[in-house]
Amino acid sequence: MVSPGEYIGMPVAEIDTPALLVDLDDLEFNIRKLAGHFEAAGKHLRPHTKSHKTPAIAHMQLQAGAIGVTCAKVGEAEVMADAGIDDVLIANEVVGRRKVERLMALARRCDIMAAVDHPDNLADLDAAAGAAGVSPRILVEVNIGHNRCGVLSSSDQALELCRAAHRAEHLRFAGLMGYQGHIVALEDADEREAGARECLQRLSDCAGRVKADGLPLEIVSTSATGDYYVSTTYDAVTEVQAGSYALMDAAYGRLGLGFRNAMTVLTTVTSRPTPEQVITDAGLKAATPEHGFPLVKLPSRDGVEVGWDPQGLRHLECESLSEEHGRLRAKGGPCHLQCGDVIEFIPGHGCTTVNLYDELYAVRGGRLEAVWPVAARGKVR
Amino acid sequence: MVSPGEYIGMPVAEIDTPALLVDLDDLEFNIRKLAGHFEAAGKHLRPHTKSHKTPAIAHMQLQAGAIGVTCAKVGEAEVMADAGIDDVLIANEVVGRRKVERLMALARRCDIMAAVDHPDNLADLDAAAGAAGVSPRILVEVNIGHNRCGVLSSSDQALELCRAAHRAEHLRFAGLMGYQGHIVALEDADEREAGARECLQRLSDCAGRVKADGLPLEIVSTSATGDYYVSTTYDAVTEVQAGSYALMDAAYGRLGLGFRNAMTVLTTVTSRPTPEQVITDAGLKAATPEHGFPLVKLPSRDGVEVGWDPQGLRHLECESLSEEHGRLRAKGGPCHLQCGDVIEFIPGHGCTTVNLYDELYAVRGGRLEAVWPVAARGKVR
Repeated sequence: MVSPGEYIGMPVAEIDTPALLVDLDDLEFNIRKLAGHFEAAGKHLRPHTKSHKTPAIAHMQLQAGAIGVTCAKVGEAEVMADAGIDDVLIANEVVGRRKVERLMALARRCDIMAAVDHPDNLADLDAAAGAAGVSPRILVEVNIGHNRCGVLSSSDQALELCRAAHRAEHLRFAGLMGYQGHIVALEDADEREAGARECLQRLSDCAGRVKADGLPLEIVSTSATGDYYVSTTYDAVTEVQAGSYALMDAAYGRLGLGFRNAMTVLTTVTSRPTPEQVITDAGLKAATPEHGFPLVKLPSRDGVEVGWDPQGLRHLECESLSEEHGRLRAKGGPCHLQCGDVIEFIPGHGCTTVNLYDELYAVRGGRLEAVWPVAARGKVR
Repeated sequence: MVSPGEYIGMPVAEIDTPALLVDLDDLEFNIRKLAGHFEAAGKHLRPHTKSHKTPAIAHMQLQAGAIGVTCAKVGEAEVMADAGIDDVLIANEVVGRRKVERLMALARRCDIMAAVDHPDNLADLDAAAGAAGVSPRILVEVNIGHNRCGVLSSSDQALELCRAAHRAEHLRFAGLMGYQGHIVALEDADEREAGARECLQRLSDCAGRVKADGLPLEIVSTSATGDYYVSTTYDAVTEVQAGSYALMDAAYGRLGLGFRNAMTVLTTVTSRPTPEQVITDAGLKAATPEHGFPLVKLPSRDGVEVGWDPQGLRHLECESLSEEHGRLRAKGGPCHLQCGDVIEFIPGHGCTTVNLYDELYAVRGGRLEAVWPVAARGKVR
């Protein structure tokens, strides 16, 4: 859609909409901030690429000190391996003949690692690795309270599965993975920390039992953007899978974590049915709604949001999204936006919003600096 | 991902997952059923391609008698024009310099038509058409109760905008468009029909005033899958924009319209944490949640769903979706599905689910017959 030679340097307001923007100053701030925390804590950061699906950003995270990347599925891992990234965790079970074959093909190209929560799957992986002549790393996924995947961390089966992974002829048992997905987005910081501690204690206890059993435990992987600072206080935890911190979104913004909203959806006002109503060209196919409707980004002066600017944008709220329309309402007075004016949305949920776009427009100081392919978008498998 | 020569004819269960499937028998049934209604009613059907974004399906609809296609945005219209489709309505305002330029480029390639709800936009289009030497068709969008875009149908401004469109030197005024988007998905059939009639009466009244003013009125376009059969009883209505009927989804399925759920998401069981819990590889990035979680498609015998089959699939319900996981629970007893088993979801909202996939796997009798590019996916602009 965009020929870089033609457009690089142009002002944001001239980019055709809807477009997904990333502010490079804010992105770099977020990457530096989290890298600094992990350096100080002496822990490893393995950023989750499901949140940006963009190799260019993964490389920035690696350059800032990340130990490798985390992916949600084989298709994402293939994209990151294509981009020359060597140390890749698929933080999920890899199940089914075709997927297992693709995992083994990945093991020839990079140091791949996958999660396992069932002995049958472990046996399938071992056999496939043997047939392919590779030895991928394995983390045993334990259920520390999320009740999704994983073998119960306190159960005998957890230890049994670790032993089986360690015994597997063609696999390298690397450690444990546990995820407190039901906790990481809680808005109350105390409640979030207490919930995370409950889960992380289970993970620590499980790690203790595995070590006491004489098994090597190189990696204990956990956590997310919402509670990374809790995880890094646990001795047992070796690395964290935070992803949303790089681009952020409106839902994570409410947690007050100190990261900047680096990602916005640029959208054009297409209709002004009443003085209070504003219709824009970004709907459900431009910003996902499951974590709430987008915030309207207010104009700022010297980095401070202007609550009531000359154009009367105060309290401009997204009331709903239909497929191709954002429906906004000005709450504090009439709105002077006109058809053709361009504004920005901070999406409610960044990870699924990125997944709608083929390109990410990297801007700095209000001008386009690069166009990055969202190369892992559409890799549903 | 799929090389057709290699895979055509293979059983559905061997397709790598998640994959978006369309059952061709069901799709053809839906297309025939609606085409038959419009032929009998003497009205035109202009199917909305936002629901499938797939030129192959648009061509099937045209072959069954559709007068042309409806698109949501310029990017979709470009894809349909690329596929050789000549009669294209963009059922939305086209605003902004770049978009208007693209509309005029489209007008050179096909008989394009766009909606207008503001005199400034009309003037922009007229000037651009003059500069480009083209004469696109224009529908004036009127607000018949949805309160989104459109000039109020009962207002003097509606008639004024029609007159201005008719006077515009380089545009062809073609008629009116009104959409009762707040009505079309109501589950109660009586409530839906009553609501639609209220809106359609406003549209009819507006059309009457435009005609009485001496303006030509070739097209009056409205409606959707949920109330097409109400619209076709109105003399003033000339054509209908139904889209979801072709592929359907779980939300529209609840309306009892007689169309078949032709589209499913094929998904693999990846974890079985408890006897009642089933985790699959299709989450928010494989099936959108805003109209409800997907239905689990139960196995059928002779076209009839089997309530309690030997594998104990009764009442298998999707409880939630995370980004890459579907969380199901068996309500009527233990579930005997194993990791690696493949099942199907009927997505809650078809239009936005299609928008997540690059390919649609066309199957018949349980075997792959074609792989269609979802060519308009990602055309966010």
